[in-house]
Amino acid sequence: MNKVAIIGVGHTKFGRLKDKGLMDLLCDASLEAINNSNTNDKEFDSVYVGSMSPGEFNHITGVASALVDRISLIPAAADHIENGPGSGGSAIKAGFQAIASGMSSLVLVVGGEKMTHISTPGFVTSVVATVTHHKAERPHGVSLPSFAGLLTRTYLQKYNAKLDWLSDIAIKNHKNGAFNPYAHFQRTIEDFMESAIQKGRGNWNNIHEYLNDDNSNPVIADPLRLFHVCPISDGAVALVLCNAEIAKEYCEDPILISGIGQATDTHIVYEREDITVLNALRQSSNQAYKMAKKTPEDMDVAELHDAFEILEAIESEDIGFFKKGEGARAAHEGLTDIGGKIPINPSGGLKARGHPLGATGVAQVAELFWQLRGEAGKRQVPDANTGITCNFGGFGNNIISILVERM
Amino acid sequence: MNKVAIIGVGHTKFGRLKDKGLMDLLCDASLEAINNSNTNDKEFDSVYVGSMSPGEFNHITGVASALVDRISLIPAAADHIENGPGSGGSAIKAGFQAIASGMSSLVLVVGGEKMTHISTPGFVTSVVATVTHHKAERPHGVSLPSFAGLLTRTYLQKYNAKLDWLSDIAIKNHKNGAFNPYAHFQRTIEDFMESAIQKGRGNWNNIHEYLNDDNSNPVIADPLRLFHVCPISDGAVALVLCNAEIAKEYCEDPILISGIGQATDTHIVYEREDITVLNALRQSSNQAYKMAKKTPEDMDVAELHDAFEILEAIESEDIGFFKKGEGARAAHEGLTDIGGKIPINPSGGLKARGHPLGATGVAQVAELFWQLRGEAGKRQVPDANTGITCNFGGFGNNIISILVERM
Repeated sequence: MNKVAIIGVGHTKFGRLKDKGLMDLLCDASLEAINNSNTNDKEFDSVYVGSMSPGEFNHITGVASALVDRISLIPAAADHIENGPGSGGSAIKAGFQAIASGMSSLVLVVGGEKMTHISTPGFVTSVVATVTHHKAERPHGVSLPSFAGLLTRTYLQKYNAKLDWLSDIAIKNHKNGAFNPYAHFQRTIEDFMESAIQKGRGNWNNIHEYLNDDNSNPVIADPLRLFHVCPISDGAVALVLCNAEIAKEYCEDPILISGIGQATDTHIVYEREDITVLNALRQSSNQAYKMAKKTPEDMDVAELHDAFEILEAIESEDIGFFKKGEGARAAHEGLTDIGGKIPINPSGGLKARGHPLGATGVAQVAELFWQLRGEAGKRQVPDANTGITCNFGGFGNNIISILVERM
Repeated sequence: MNKVAIIGVGHTKFGRLKDKGLMDLLCDASLEAINNSNTNDKEFDSVYVGSMSPGEFNHITGVASALVDRISLIPAAADHIENGPGSGGSAIKAGFQAIASGMSSLVLVVGGEKMTHISTPGFVTSVVATVTHHKAERPHGVSLPSFAGLLTRTYLQKYNAKLDWLSDIAIKNHKNGAFNPYAHFQRTIEDFMESAIQKGRGNWNNIHEYLNDDNSNPVIADPLRLFHVCPISDGAVALVLCNAEIAKEYCEDPILISGIGQATDTHIVYEREDITVLNALRQSSNQAYKMAKKTPEDMDVAELHDAFEILEAIESEDIGFFKKGEGARAAHEGLTDIGGKIPINPSGGLKARGHPLGATGVAQVAELFWQLRGEAGKRQVPDANTGITCNFGGFGNNIISILVERM
């Protein structure tokens, strides 16, 4: 199997990007990645686009074919990969396999989504809800936030954890995101509180008081509140991958993708023996560790899929960093801060960086690329040589883990 | 690169399948393929689903995750591949790369689409039109049939060809489809004419008179008439792929995928130097021939993408069987009949087998699987040892060619 390296990254700002359409975002990220990987004059073999719902949100199908034309990569092969909010991770895996098989040697992977232009109330949430089971779940009004609420309640009760500890994850992620120039929210939650105090909207003695106030932090899906939930964002991120043997021709400091895992679990969440266990993550991360000959203890940094803050807690357990039931407490104790035992989401995660569905899995790997090259500025994790991701398709029923390391 | 073999096929009936939803069709085809490949008790590594618009037509995203659960293949990795009407071919390529890379050894590929339940007039055509350019083409009312009409007019004029020769392609494909138990239309056009005569709807001296009558064969996109255009169909087809080294453990007569090519062309059709030339097919088929170390002369049978009959004529040229401008005449002269120089679409093609978008690319390879194994019954091509496909994403801007041969 050919080894696969990352030699360049492009990342648009995430957020409400009024002046950019989906194709603009995919192009911007792609051209930046091509430019900074010094592959401008090279012939790409394949392009993989990870996007959840370009048909529903943007009335574009064949989005990969459209992209290769617009960025002048014809006649590169081009495919669109969809795995719900895990589409970005799946697109990286497709690009990886194209190179690993020897079918391609230079590949562009780009993930992106454009949603904030949609004005129909509830439309985005209802499209995202199409990943749930179309007979057993969706017709009964289930959406992803409602699942996250149920999961949170179960977890807090079962492991004697506190909602405030999940708030601590949001606090940490906003703190990290404040140093990420691409993040949707580049503000700490303390900033939000200070601003609210200054505007006379209330007065709170500490951050948890602010976060437990129904006015400043309304309940979204009991017990989850607004700051426990990621935003709806636009954005795109691209990676240039190549056969590792030729990586140093383009780039002094390529990053190796040394492990990839992907596994599925029951579609119907109710059918899982224990909803606080992400079997798909246990298996996908084990596959990635095994392929890379690493263990969870070898990881210096991780980017996890905190579409809801409960997910970061649970994922930090099932990916092997903490024992079952101890993830939320670990975050509360600072073990996942930059400088802690295992820094999680130095990018700000989905909570602060934002979550343009198909872009997220690619953004996670882009963040690790920068972290491992020591280019993450004020959010830099010290001595980061190895990292892993967790990217979620559906509600935990299709998870991709990507393990990267310095070459 | 590991070699890849096909060891089993599942094929639902194509047509207006009122009692089956998209998931039913994908499951039926998958379980049949698993069953006839003797892999019922085996652990699949990956599942790839090719489907153009399950979100828009069926309100299902993450369709691959949904499928693995329903057919009990958890924890297999699962992704949905979209490349417009070429989604099936792209899904096969993804499965091929999974095995070729060594990441997977047993893979299920299934393509399917369910559209005939949609009652909103024009909705299906407008969703399919989302593969056209969203600024330069679609807003001006362009749809795929309109492009096919323009292309037909250009071709007939430039190469001094006759519309009747394109009708001859439809006549041949219906004749072949009449022997395909899975085809949407299992009737010859002669049958349709006889039936119309019996019902007193008219009287025609020969088949071309019938096909040139505005009542019996109305104009769809001038000069194309109804019988020059494929139907809207439901259906699904699945293949079980495995590392060729272990293929004979499952199956006495596996078929080798020895070549795969994929290439793109300008998204905006107007920007092509000559719209009667499919550059993407020239390149994709050349890649496939080169990889398999074969030439067009080595091919015994082909399955081409005749969503419109003009496409079969042009594809038969650009895939290397006939000189430019001679494809329609060759069909008229019977060279593409079963028993002719190079039999094309013994299955009935998209015209008679039907065109459930994402299923088509997989159905083409399924037909070659049967042809090469001598299992095609009354539509069997004699001595078929090698075959090639052309599967179309968009309007010729993303084409996959798959070359198969006996092991």
